[in-house]
Amino acid sequence: MSVHLAKGARDFLPAAMRNRLAVIGIVREVFERFGFEPLDTPAFERLETLAGKYGDEGDKLMYKILKRGRGSERGECDMALRYDLTVPLARVVAMHPELRMPFKRYHMAPVWRADRPQRGRFREFWQCDVDVVGTTSPLAEAECLAVVDAAMEALGFSDFRIRLNDRRILRAMARAAGAMDQEMPVLIAVDKLDKIGRDGVTAELAGLGLEPDAVARLWQILDVKPGLQSTLDALAPQLDEEGQAGVQTLREVLALAAAHGVPSHRIVVDPTLARGLDYYTGPVYECEVLEGGIGSTGGGGRYDGLVGLFSGRDIPAVGVSLGLERLITVMEERGMLPAEGATAQVLVTLHGPEQQHYAVKVATTLRNAGVRTELFLDSRKLRAQFKHANACGHGWIALSGPDEANNGQVTLKNMSTGAQQTVRLEDAAGIVLG
Amino acid sequence: MSVHLAKGARDFLPAAMRNRLAVIGIVREVFERFGFEPLDTPAFERLETLAGKYGDEGDKLMYKILKRGRGSERGECDMALRYDLTVPLARVVAMHPELRMPFKRYHMAPVWRADRPQRGRFREFWQCDVDVVGTTSPLAEAECLAVVDAAMEALGFSDFRIRLNDRRILRAMARAAGAMDQEMPVLIAVDKLDKIGRDGVTAELAGLGLEPDAVARLWQILDVKPGLQSTLDALAPQLDEEGQAGVQTLREVLALAAAHGVPSHRIVVDPTLARGLDYYTGPVYECEVLEGGIGSTGGGGRYDGLVGLFSGRDIPAVGVSLGLERLITVMEERGMLPAEGATAQVLVTLHGPEQQHYAVKVATTLRNAGVRTELFLDSRKLRAQFKHANACGHGWIALSGPDEANNGQVTLKNMSTGAQQTVRLEDAAGIVLG
Repeated sequence: MSVHLAKGARDFLPAAMRNRLAVIGIVREVFERFGFEPLDTPAFERLETLAGKYGDEGDKLMYKILKRGRGSERGECDMALRYDLTVPLARVVAMHPELRMPFKRYHMAPVWRADRPQRGRFREFWQCDVDVVGTTSPLAEAECLAVVDAAMEALGFSDFRIRLNDRRILRAMARAAGAMDQEMPVLIAVDKLDKIGRDGVTAELAGLGLEPDAVARLWQILDVKPGLQSTLDALAPQLDEEGQAGVQTLREVLALAAAHGVPSHRIVVDPTLARGLDYYTGPVYECEVLEGGIGSTGGGGRYDGLVGLFSGRDIPAVGVSLGLERLITVMEERGMLPAEGATAQVLVTLHGPEQQHYAVKVATTLRNAGVRTELFLDSRKLRAQFKHANACGHGWIALSGPDEANNGQVTLKNMSTGAQQTVRLEDAAGIVLG
Repeated sequence: MSVHLAKGARDFLPAAMRNRLAVIGIVREVFERFGFEPLDTPAFERLETLAGKYGDEGDKLMYKILKRGRGSERGECDMALRYDLTVPLARVVAMHPELRMPFKRYHMAPVWRADRPQRGRFREFWQCDVDVVGTTSPLAEAECLAVVDAAMEALGFSDFRIRLNDRRILRAMARAAGAMDQEMPVLIAVDKLDKIGRDGVTAELAGLGLEPDAVARLWQILDVKPGLQSTLDALAPQLDEEGQAGVQTLREVLALAAAHGVPSHRIVVDPTLARGLDYYTGPVYECEVLEGGIGSTGGGGRYDGLVGLFSGRDIPAVGVSLGLERLITVMEERGMLPAEGATAQVLVTLHGPEQQHYAVKVATTLRNAGVRTELFLDSRKLRAQFKHANACGHGWIALSGPDEANNGQVTLKNMSTGAQQTVRLEDAAGIVLG
């Protein structure tokens, strides 16, 4: 009998899962503090809902589900696992015209991509998304930056930076370099800068048919030093009207982010930031931790066209997605993960069969008083039970042997200090809860 | 552009999702109080891990995933969405011999079955499972009953009942009726009693080749009145040794459940309870709410053979699964769902563009003080913003108009009383938090 995981998939055993739950809880708390409402959508969508929304690569990496009954023999597929949480949101908004705009929702859930597994990248991974649908105000972008800043801080990060750019600036750059109808291909080439380096991008641009002086002109703009207002000041004169509109939006976003209390050193306008996905139309941003080279821990932007694809009416939208797996990878490497020790605070030991009922009573009494309590559920030597508590990380052991049973007591052992005391059963919970 | 959900799938909009999160949180709290550790497994498993574990029906209802790359044209599948949380647990235990026994885990997650949708039944639905692996002690069964009782009570139910039986009793009944090698088919027929009634079961038993007097003999045992010790007393003399072992185990389980404080009127030994799945070997149980006819809201039993299928060594196991969707269906019908009103406690209004920065400051101040706050992110008439708060169910509105901005104040309107007061910004959070 085969005992393997599906390729690229993972189990989360208790120690890992306690930390995931803690991290998810922290992020959820921040999202809710900003007034985002929870939403959930099914794991699978109709194939036609997802197909074509993520470029050719996306279509290839999608997990498709075989039809049940007729069609299954012919290998036909009618559904696929969701690839992100944004397209499902667009579908929900289209199906629910009664939703009140601006609609602010968060969604924390797994998505699936048949990608090549690598460090911090898996085929099943969680995204933690907030989006604001139904407003063109840069207040929405600023709130996305503020919520990322708050979430990163709540998780314990201080050395991170949010890179900021605008798709209109990127497109205007391409035009300024003379690549009039090739804004998207130019943008895709620029997006690879981190991966293939400057020479690689130059080669790709040449491959698109850009003349050497056009490429040089483009680098001249891309090379504007990342910063805040000074970067925007240097960019503006080199761009056409659409590009300048992008610059103006970023000025407003920066001012509003400051009003949100986001420290200015955490944000940088970076003319080379492009982001991969097709659907962005305005500001784009990406959050990265400065050390460790894990890359982006989250990002997003404005995508005013996507919801309309489903709705048949224009509905602006903007959002940001935090990548749970990368966050946890970095937090693990840095020893920032919060949840140590067993879920149960106390292990109640099991002595002979005669004390079984008393042990149940001890566990029940502790639980009813709000103590997370494991009752050892097998007849083993006491030494094995102590070993269990040590290995699992229980804070306390509650011994309920014959003497304790006879006297309505329990002997509590503090596993970190080793101190031991015999107390009345009704006083035990108070001691454990401190 | 198509805007449909996949068949049998559902979205959870904020009002529904708030309640799901609340219910999941309550159940999780109970599971952790009993010292169960969290575990998560991937949505998909290798096909060979799942195939054949749930009978023919299960194989048919499984969602299979098309191979990527080569094989996809031929319609080949290598994975399937998980069908329950028990088989994945068995695989995890087999892959991790380092897990300390008894291993107590909970798992709350969606599973997928291409079943015919009906009331309280969906193709994607959540199970909330606890299992104890690695012990044959009836302490484990008793804890399963106690955790179900505690979870149902924490959710606000009082009129529920846990039916209890033992597979060994059922098999002994079949033998007592003379159906020596047909214990499983007889059991499957009995399991349909709720669906097809007494005559239907009698017909199925005849179809199995049982003579009329064998069927009559079987009914004589099945008709033993459901109850507690009296039922076991009436059953015991009619059963062979294996059946009596089942009776003895149930006696111990009942005594231990009482030690757990489970009220005796909540449990009933029911000789007709069989449960559908193949893999049970000992006690089985099912929880049902008494009114409303929704049927089982959860159930489980001992399955000492399943983990060994993967491990190649015998590992006993017992568990129980609560069905989130049915619980929520009943709770909704009865008005028991807890989460009313918007996630955000306060809506901060947006006045002219001049007050924008002040409104951001108001929202940030409230959030930093721990108030869940929505900032209205679009320029609309104040009336529209009030309507938004009314429709979404915010408890408070915080007006931050020109006067407030000039004086560092905010005007708080309590949406339930209608009372309004203008206060210093730094005092606002205290008022909202009460």
